[in-house]
Amino acid sequence: MSETVEGREALALLERARAAVDPGLRTALGSLPGPMRRVALYHFGWENADGSPAAGSAGKAIRPALVMAAAEALGGDPAAVAGAAAAVELVHNFTLLHDDVIDEDPTRRHRPTAWTVFGTPDAIIVGDAMLALAYRLLAHDPHPAAGAAAGRIAECVIELCAGQQADCAFEERPPEDVSLEECLAMATAKTGALLGCACAVGALYAGAGEAETAAMDAFGREAGLAFQLIDDLIGIWGDPGRTGKPAGADLAAHKKSLPVVAALGSGTAAAAELALLYRGHMSPGAVARAADAVDRAGGRDWAQLQAADRMARAVHELSRAVPDLAAAGDLLSLAEFVTRRSR
Amino acid sequence: MSETVEGREALALLERARAAVDPGLRTALGSLPGPMRRVALYHFGWENADGSPAAGSAGKAIRPALVMAAAEALGGDPAAVAGAAAAVELVHNFTLLHDDVIDEDPTRRHRPTAWTVFGTPDAIIVGDAMLALAYRLLAHDPHPAAGAAAGRIAECVIELCAGQQADCAFEERPPEDVSLEECLAMATAKTGALLGCACAVGALYAGAGEAETAAMDAFGREAGLAFQLIDDLIGIWGDPGRTGKPAGADLAAHKKSLPVVAALGSGTAAAAELALLYRGHMSPGAVARAADAVDRAGGRDWAQLQAADRMARAVHELSRAVPDLAAAGDLLSLAEFVTRRSR
Repeated sequence: MSETVEGREALALLERARAAVDPGLRTALGSLPGPMRRVALYHFGWENADGSPAAGSAGKAIRPALVMAAAEALGGDPAAVAGAAAAVELVHNFTLLHDDVIDEDPTRRHRPTAWTVFGTPDAIIVGDAMLALAYRLLAHDPHPAAGAAAGRIAECVIELCAGQQADCAFEERPPEDVSLEECLAMATAKTGALLGCACAVGALYAGAGEAETAAMDAFGREAGLAFQLIDDLIGIWGDPGRTGKPAGADLAAHKKSLPVVAALGSGTAAAAELALLYRGHMSPGAVARAADAVDRAGGRDWAQLQAADRMARAVHELSRAVPDLAAAGDLLSLAEFVTRRSR
Repeated sequence: MSETVEGREALALLERARAAVDPGLRTALGSLPGPMRRVALYHFGWENADGSPAAGSAGKAIRPALVMAAAEALGGDPAAVAGAAAAVELVHNFTLLHDDVIDEDPTRRHRPTAWTVFGTPDAIIVGDAMLALAYRLLAHDPHPAAGAAAGRIAECVIELCAGQQADCAFEERPPEDVSLEECLAMATAKTGALLGCACAVGALYAGAGEAETAAMDAFGREAGLAFQLIDDLIGIWGDPGRTGKPAGADLAAHKKSLPVVAALGSGTAAAAELALLYRGHMSPGAVARAADAVDRAGGRDWAQLQAADRMARAVHELSRAVPDLAAAGDLLSLAEFVTRRSR
């Protein structure tokens, strides 16, 4: 029951964030020259490939919602952070465009990825332009925290790049050669960093000091890692009807997700079985056997416990930034929401 | 004789710029996590692919030299712009990394391009990181003009993206379908914009007002277009011993460079001949015939006159920013240098 209330609260916060940032995002993307604008609006789900209006989804707006909720939890005005929240969302979408090119992913938000529709050059170029749009938004934002936010976002982008680079490098190595520690560091950089940055930017806009901002960042990072762990579990055991992906999609793609790497490092008979399966082609039967091996090797339990542990750490960090946690209810709702979304 | 003096002056300015920005660039690139750092230092010519030190060239440092000279011409302190000049150089190198991926260029500064050595994903990711490093440099620059410079650079990156996008789109169209006007607009966005931005950033750091900054930008743009026209002439008639590329390399690649597009649009018999040659494979004999056709169709003369005209406009714009042109000698030397470099 309490989960349902929290879920409803989170959905309202996400809707509020979408409404707050969409006008700025539409203006920013609309300012791009024609051919780039078309790719950008397609990627956001606002236009079809032929330029006709689409009712697609621009994503859940988790990061803008975190920027707004973090600012509000520290006494800031959520309306004053709309530009910075839109900038963070542009950064997120810049990484999606480039990651889809790099990973050769065919689908994003239930539609063909931009590079499959417009070609790799356009997807690279429009990703670059989105990152520049984020900085332009911040450069024109008269708020006194805009400069510090721009620096923080630049730092975060470098970390996102490092995470994506590590992810690619892992794909080249044999599965049993990648340690769980390396894998967690990669997930922290690739997913945790931007959620942390979103919270830190909200804190900066509320006039927070260094310690509060760092604690907000840590909250977002830990929640982000919990989110990634749950996402990895869904990639193996998720309901295809809800995820839009076939069951075991990550296993079929030989993805070294966190539960898989934990299982491989368990020293169990199931780990050896999994390693063998990961060396060959993944038929539907092999995918089912691999999922079972991850479970028996303890990868599923580890990921669930690790996710719970990260959420506990997230709440601890949040309590350092906002001693009266009652004021941080929205942030907690959002963190709960992202880590429970498809279970 | 005066050309030699100017050339010597320009070389001294470029050396000064290299010395001013290299420490900041090395610190910035050195702060990247290991695998990204390696790609970045390779791209700059400072390391070999195996990580050993290299004595390669990091480029001519034209853009940092323009930032410094523009600041100085308006009474600014060239030492105070070192960080901003390094940021502009990082932006330039971000575009090189991505453009080489997009254009599938095998060679840059006489070495294999980064994507051919480290793969496309690493080249995309490290390009992204370089753009973020540029913004981080500006975010940490205490100079009061740093914020305005960041906004100007963001605007410029969007224009660079538009230019690269147009360049790609032209490649898909039949040669006679691309108008000279479109081609000039593309070259202005792709080459002129960043030279203009470099000069504008220098002006901002000297505390210049809007009109002076705009005139400085226009100076850099016009000089950049002259540079591109000369570069296009070199791509057809350049001395392979000096350019490091085979003669007529641009023709062999069916490149729609400015002299080619001017020739194709001339309505002459030579234009028809050139269009026919551009439809087929370019043997060395065909390249020679195409070069001759561009010449007979007036493309060579047009480009030379246009370059001279752009330089005249550049000087006119410069005189609006710096009424006593004696104070702008360094900028004139640099503009002369880049437009005369290989003739």
